[in-house]
Amino acid sequence: MSLRWIDEVEWDASGLAPVITQEVETKQVLTLAWMSRESLALTLETGHAVYWSRSRQKLWHKGEESGNQQIVKSIRLDCDKDTLLLEVEQKGGIACHTGRHHCFYFELVEGEWVSQEPVLKDPKEIYK
Amino acid sequence: MSLRWIDEVEWDASGLAPVITQEVETKQVLTLAWMSRESLALTLETGHAVYWSRSRQKLWHKGEESGNQQIVKSIRLDCDKDTLLLEVEQKGGIACHTGRHHCFYFELVEGEWVSQEPVLKDPKEIYK
Repeated sequence: MSLRWIDEVEWDASGLAPVITQEVETKQVLTLAWMSRESLALTLETGHAVYWSRSRQKLWHKGEESGNQQIVKSIRLDCDKDTLLLEVEQKGGIACHTGRHHCFYFELVEGEWVSQEPVLKDPKEIYK
Repeated sequence: MSLRWIDEVEWDASGLAPVITQEVETKQVLTLAWMSRESLALTLETGHAVYWSRSRQKLWHKGEESGNQQIVKSIRLDCDKDTLLLEVEQKGGIACHTGRHHCFYFELVEGEWVSQEPVLKDPKEIYK
């Protein structure tokens, strides 16, 4: 695949770029994930976030198991053209595999990482 | 240096972790940068963002030349403990070296990356 706008992204040595995903309504940062050329093309084509799973080494249609898809509202790129920013609508209100709204739930408080967000749904109920 | 909360971060093979920095007031995502153990410790100690510059391979006190420091309001970590999220107050209102408020100024519009943010200050004036 060769689309000029995709080739303009400065993909790293592994062919990936980090992707910050932000909820359009609340502006909460939900996740940091990674995309390949193919996943970015699929994201535009399907209208929902498709990442590259580095741990599983395969395309990851966010929400494919949980139903918690991310509907893409805008795709942005930074000054160095090596990092993407998505604005999304988060289906089900849960972006994190732990059942929380977003992934950044540990806050540093007096030298300890303290969990600051409630589990909205038991992961056992999300991934059956 | 060995502080338990620093060792709990899952540093990558290069000893780094990506850091998303968000403006506390507007919730705008300003930058994606990287931290080492030392830069994270210095961030907490000094109260302003200290990154690790991968291109220059050295500590980078954000704003050291421009004066546009980032005053840290909170430090968060994600579920995998491998990505940090800072909430900051952005001094001077300019986070990007191009003189823009933030770095994610290219938006994908009909197959083109279009610059959507004004240059607030000429970089020649910022970096003298």
